[in-house]
Amino acid sequence: MDSTQKISHLALDIGGTLIKLVYFSANGDYSEESRNGCSVVHGKLCFAKFETRKIDDCLEFIRFNILHHSGVQHPNGAAHDKLYVKATGGGAFKFADLFKEKLGILFDKEDEMHSLVGGVNFLLKTVPREAFTYLDGQKEFVEIDHNDLYPYLLVNIGSGVSMIKVDGDGKYERISGTSLGGGTFLGLGKLLTKCKSFDELLELSHHGNNRVIDMLVGDIYGGTDYSKIGLSSTAIASSFGKAISDGKELEDYQPEDVARSLLRMISNNIGQIAYLNALRFGLKRIFFGGFFIRGLEYTMDTISVAVHFWSRGEAKAMFLRHEGFLGALGAFTSYNNQSHNDLKSHHHTVQRAILNCSGDNFRHIPVTSNLNDSETIECSINLV
Amino acid sequence: MDSTQKISHLALDIGGTLIKLVYFSANGDYSEESRNGCSVVHGKLCFAKFETRKIDDCLEFIRFNILHHSGVQHPNGAAHDKLYVKATGGGAFKFADLFKEKLGILFDKEDEMHSLVGGVNFLLKTVPREAFTYLDGQKEFVEIDHNDLYPYLLVNIGSGVSMIKVDGDGKYERISGTSLGGGTFLGLGKLLTKCKSFDELLELSHHGNNRVIDMLVGDIYGGTDYSKIGLSSTAIASSFGKAISDGKELEDYQPEDVARSLLRMISNNIGQIAYLNALRFGLKRIFFGGFFIRGLEYTMDTISVAVHFWSRGEAKAMFLRHEGFLGALGAFTSYNNQSHNDLKSHHHTVQRAILNCSGDNFRHIPVTSNLNDSETIECSINLV
Repeated sequence: MDSTQKISHLALDIGGTLIKLVYFSANGDYSEESRNGCSVVHGKLCFAKFETRKIDDCLEFIRFNILHHSGVQHPNGAAHDKLYVKATGGGAFKFADLFKEKLGILFDKEDEMHSLVGGVNFLLKTVPREAFTYLDGQKEFVEIDHNDLYPYLLVNIGSGVSMIKVDGDGKYERISGTSLGGGTFLGLGKLLTKCKSFDELLELSHHGNNRVIDMLVGDIYGGTDYSKIGLSSTAIASSFGKAISDGKELEDYQPEDVARSLLRMISNNIGQIAYLNALRFGLKRIFFGGFFIRGLEYTMDTISVAVHFWSRGEAKAMFLRHEGFLGALGAFTSYNNQSHNDLKSHHHTVQRAILNCSGDNFRHIPVTSNLNDSETIECSINLV
Repeated sequence: MDSTQKISHLALDIGGTLIKLVYFSANGDYSEESRNGCSVVHGKLCFAKFETRKIDDCLEFIRFNILHHSGVQHPNGAAHDKLYVKATGGGAFKFADLFKEKLGILFDKEDEMHSLVGGVNFLLKTVPREAFTYLDGQKEFVEIDHNDLYPYLLVNIGSGVSMIKVDGDGKYERISGTSLGGGTFLGLGKLLTKCKSFDELLELSHHGNNRVIDMLVGDIYGGTDYSKIGLSSTAIASSFGKAISDGKELEDYQPEDVARSLLRMISNNIGQIAYLNALRFGLKRIFFGGFFIRGLEYTMDTISVAVHFWSRGEAKAMFLRHEGFLGALGAFTSYNNQSHNDLKSHHHTVQRAILNCSGDNFRHIPVTSNLNDSETIECSINLV
């Protein structure tokens, strides 16, 4: 990042496992067009993430890469006095004092569920080719009809999982959730495989075979299906069930196989509970978000198959390219709705920032299986 | 067991983890009353279980304790030629050849779901004080109105979990299930704690504290509730989520705490999925069975609280004293419905056995937290 870059409008989503950042970076020339009395600044939304346990890295990043670049555009060159940034997630409460003390930043707190919903609605309405399905190894972009978007079920898989019925802009209800989420995958995964990170655990799972440890219907039925109730011999009867009887210890299993069974267990369980909740309210579309997914094909495939299996094809699992930054994006978009409290100080004349990301301002980025965390969204901000 | 004891009518339920046996043992004097043209034999139903991986122990038990005692009452003293016993569960298929080869026993196979439902209906209709609720540390027997028994949801927690909507005698549908069951608890538990048995793992869990490893809402929110959506600071946000950030390895955790978190995770998940399925079909009563529960207070409490929490008090979790033997009992009661194929050979004149267990033939056994596996049910059999 060169020192002439202009940064503004930071939003943070501080979860139990990860801190997600979204901020606006103006184009190098910082060209402000005037349009209908507004200044229009072209630039892009940038994304970054840090582990919550390494929050000092996040503080450093904000100090050197954001505050610094924000400061240089400060209109009167004065030191920051009161800097407000949008913050959501439990850490907006837990770490408020730390940010104030270390960076002089005050949190303008946004509700976690509200931010998640705001983030998804923003993406679905303004970013083309954001949502896609994944079935049988095929990704397919979903055309979103803005007049037929609601209702839908949002399943956000963070450390834990929240399930939110969304009926409109700002109209939502958290109807369910499960404690078996990304934190469970990584927590159990670390204990079982000694891997150090989420990426390492996912990489392990990629090379594993869940049938080594999972007890399949065929293992119980002597290789045959239990066809009367539609259970094939390869269906998982009991996750980790073979570990009961193998007479093996943890060291005797390949970490790859353990990671695979774990990923399958968590993904399948979330898919099932999501489907059951969609069914309660007649919701046909389920959007899955949160950093657990990471565009990983096996995860998306398992979730999709679970939803497809349990709903007998009635409901559809959909995924989002910016899945990991829903809450942070939602907090970011709440800059739209107010007349103060942006990243810059109160002395600044900017009062309202309208994010303008529709249409051709976007790069059309093809879906890749490993979306880069720092994948940006080109957009402009109207300073009114 | 003395050698004069008379055993008849064996039924087996061979699951992925356990083999469950039910058999009828006539009273020592083998008194046959004649009543309306039937011989009535008084005795009791006996229960036994073996680990499926130690199936040889089960074969030995049947050879010495059942066939032997069955043989002595063989009417013409001849050797068994064709011995049929009722068998259900996947092992009825998987181990049919083994039983034939080692014991000369042929399996008269009964469908697994059919047997489970038959077992529960038998217990609820004929055994007083069989069903009970468990909430806030209080057990309470449930009066079963035979005219208002259906519909109900049966949740059988074996290695995996089956959820069956029961609408009447023989009228049922397997509507759901989950692979996170008793096999997952024991399988993961063995890998994580190095314990050797289910009982040992349960004992560990009894002394543990799940908050050591589970990430609570308060851990994310800095000790406060997320009251807006009804999540208290002590609610589990992410099972095993603290293992992400503690910088600890498996050896640094107490096995007790690991076992506790695991039990809580599995029990809560089953309770939630059960509730969501009960909701789909408007079922107010959910009976939980299967060997996973074992009358363990913490397990029942977790399941009850999950059902209570998610249903906002609308649905009720109920438990069964003979929870572990539902399938075996169901297979046993199917002796009622036919005119051949009991434990004794075809030469025997017994053609139909009607189990008569209602009313005063029963000991009224108080519910204890550790129901002895061999808890018997006194009853009589009508040989017609």
